[in-house]
Amino acid sequence: MTSGEEGQGQAPVFGPDFAAQLETLLQWRRDVRHFDQRPVAAADMHVLLRSACLAPSVGNAQPWRFVHVRSPAIRAALADHIDVESRAASAQYADKGQRDSYLALKLHGVREAPELLAVFCDEVPVAGHGLGIATMPEMLRYSTVLAIHTLWLAARVRGIGLGWVSIVQPRTAAAMLDVPADWSLIALLCIGYPAEQGQTPELEKRGWQAREPLADRVIER
Amino acid sequence: MTSGEEGQGQAPVFGPDFAAQLETLLQWRRDVRHFDQRPVAAADMHVLLRSACLAPSVGNAQPWRFVHVRSPAIRAALADHIDVESRAASAQYADKGQRDSYLALKLHGVREAPELLAVFCDEVPVAGHGLGIATMPEMLRYSTVLAIHTLWLAARVRGIGLGWVSIVQPRTAAAMLDVPADWSLIALLCIGYPAEQGQTPELEKRGWQAREPLADRVIER
Repeated sequence: MTSGEEGQGQAPVFGPDFAAQLETLLQWRRDVRHFDQRPVAAADMHVLLRSACLAPSVGNAQPWRFVHVRSPAIRAALADHIDVESRAASAQYADKGQRDSYLALKLHGVREAPELLAVFCDEVPVAGHGLGIATMPEMLRYSTVLAIHTLWLAARVRGIGLGWVSIVQPRTAAAMLDVPADWSLIALLCIGYPAEQGQTPELEKRGWQAREPLADRVIER
Repeated sequence: MTSGEEGQGQAPVFGPDFAAQLETLLQWRRDVRHFDQRPVAAADMHVLLRSACLAPSVGNAQPWRFVHVRSPAIRAALADHIDVESRAASAQYADKGQRDSYLALKLHGVREAPELLAVFCDEVPVAGHGLGIATMPEMLRYSTVLAIHTLWLAARVRGIGLGWVSIVQPRTAAAMLDVPADWSLIALLCIGYPAEQGQTPELEKRGWQAREPLADRVIER
């Protein structure tokens, strides 16, 4: 920052302690499926949503749309739908052992989580004026994902857990939630205090899939 | 965390100071298009990539694939391609004033950024064993976006800027980089120390698009 630029104050310098704490946050963020029943304060939900809106977005289009699900009937319908889709997905595992492992996993906390948030992407936002999406219109959906991740970290730093549920037919969920036709479902988020905390992903603890080495993920050109 | 669970050590508690600093980080993260020429240390690049791999992913599939672009010829070809696509995209603005505003924006630093990283999603990863993608295969791409955002924050906390370039034909870039057929381009990332820092998004400073109120982004059902 050139000093005094636009009166925005001094650019912050983040020290090594903060960097280390951020890494701890990343290591202890988890996808949570087991919630305790302690409610999430409305003020905290507001902070999480406000934080989400600090995410980057293509053309600054801010295409994220949050649907706070308060109706018990809609929540129950979503949970039933997910269970049907999850059972259907188990058919992809020809090996009975693997199928049984899959069916034994707890894949969502939609029924128990104190808060349920559906996140959509507005595919035709006015904001942004089309910048950056001529060749990659999916950037709007990716921007919405960035907002979800921001919300996730803002939650975890406050001890609040989040579980991202994707075993859902996006159009079915959109219909249940009666949202505008141009909105695409990106995620169904379960939010609440986790019943337990851990540094190891649940799917790793249960032997489904461990972390893989970085070296397998980088090539040069 | 139940105490002593799996010997993972005590779950961290993040205090209000860290939460405030995290919010500052989110507020000062920027999409950077102006870089100075100071190189990014190889050790820092390694930390950024390692941090990215802490991101959540569907089924723990870790579908992110990073291509570190070191060839000046490939970089130049990518930059030329982006300029062609950006000029083509300007045709969407029928209003001459808006088109001129668009063309006056600096939309990428592909030629100058000390480091260039192309990020792909492996659409058929072995890891994860298909969990969570039966109804939403796009979750693999979204997982890759989560890794990019994680890398972005890990960079900014170290004073390193990142610019996400999306004005690119994904298949053209994939061909230039000669990656496996099952990899989809998610982002081209310019990485380096920013020439200036600011709290206001560049597109807002230049009058293209300001932040919009949270209330316009939340509904209830």
